[in-house]
Amino acid sequence: MKEHFMEQAIKEAKKAFDNGEVPIGAVIVLNDKIIAKAYNKKEKQNSVLEHAEIIAIKKAEKKLKNWRLENCDLYVTLEPCPMCASAIQQSRINNIYYGIENSDQKNHEIIKQICKNTKTNKEVELHGGILKTECEQLLKTFFQKQRNKTNV
Amino acid sequence: MKEHFMEQAIKEAKKAFDNGEVPIGAVIVLNDKIIAKAYNKKEKQNSVLEHAEIIAIKKAEKKLKNWRLENCDLYVTLEPCPMCASAIQQSRINNIYYGIENSDQKNHEIIKQICKNTKTNKEVELHGGILKTECEQLLKTFFQKQRNKTNV
Repeated sequence: MKEHFMEQAIKEAKKAFDNGEVPIGAVIVLNDKIIAKAYNKKEKQNSVLEHAEIIAIKKAEKKLKNWRLENCDLYVTLEPCPMCASAIQQSRINNIYYGIENSDQKNHEIIKQICKNTKTNKEVELHGGILKTECEQLLKTFFQKQRNKTNV
Repeated sequence: MKEHFMEQAIKEAKKAFDNGEVPIGAVIVLNDKIIAKAYNKKEKQNSVLEHAEIIAIKKAEKKLKNWRLENCDLYVTLEPCPMCASAIQQSRINNIYYGIENSDQKNHEIIKQICKNTKTNKEVELHGGILKTECEQLLKTFFQKQRNKTNV
C-alpha cells in the first residue's frame, strides 16, 4: 500500500515537472483512501507557501471541514522542509512517508526534532526511502534539464 | 521605530482577540513602511496554516508580486512557531522582531536553528522582547477569559 500511495505522489510530482517547477508531489491518506493530492506550485503562484504538502493540507482541511487531520498519513516524494514538517505536525497527521532524504543534513536534524517535540503536539513518525529511486530520478532529470537550459 | 511597528502588530492581535482567536498579530515592513498586516484566523478559517505570519507573508508576496521579500522585516507579538519561522526564512526576510518568547523551550531552540541554518537560505536575525509586557498582557487576558468560560 505504501508504494501505491507514493506512486500517486510521484504522479503529482510529474505535474510539477511538466510546469517547470521542482518536481515534488504529495498525497494525504485517510482509511486507505486518498483525500487530497497536490504538487509544488511555488514559481507559478509566486509564493513560498505553495509547497505540495501545504496545498495538500489545505485541501484535506476543506474536505474534512476540520484543521485536525486525525488518523491521516502524508506521502511526499522529498522529505519535507521545516515549514511543512511543522504544518504536518500541527495538523495532527500520524505518519510522514517520504521518498528521498533532505540533502541538507542540518534541515534533516531540525525536521526530526520538530516531529518528535511533543510539548504541544503529538509525535509524527517519519518513514523514509519509499520508492526512493523513482523519486530521486525525477529530481535528477529536472535539475539536469535546468542545467542544460543554463548552458545553452 | 521598532515599538511603533510592534504597536501595529498588537492592534492586529487585538482583532484576533475580538474574534475569539488566540491574540497574535504580525506586520511586515519594507523601507520603514508597513506593506502587510494580519492576525491569527486559525479557528475561523479552520486551518493550521492561518497563522498571522503566514497570512502576512501571503499579502506581502501579492503586494510585491514576488515571493522574495528581500529587505523586509517581520514584527510579531509572539515568537513564531517552526512552520512560520521556516516560511519567514524561505521568504528571505531579514529580521524577526517579536514580543514574547515561545514558552516551549524546545520549540525556541528549533526556531533558532531554523533561522541560523544558512545552507539554502540566508540567516534571519531574531530579536525578542519588543513591547513584551503589552504582548504578554493580551495573551494572559485571553487565556484567563477562556478559563472563566470553561468554569461557568
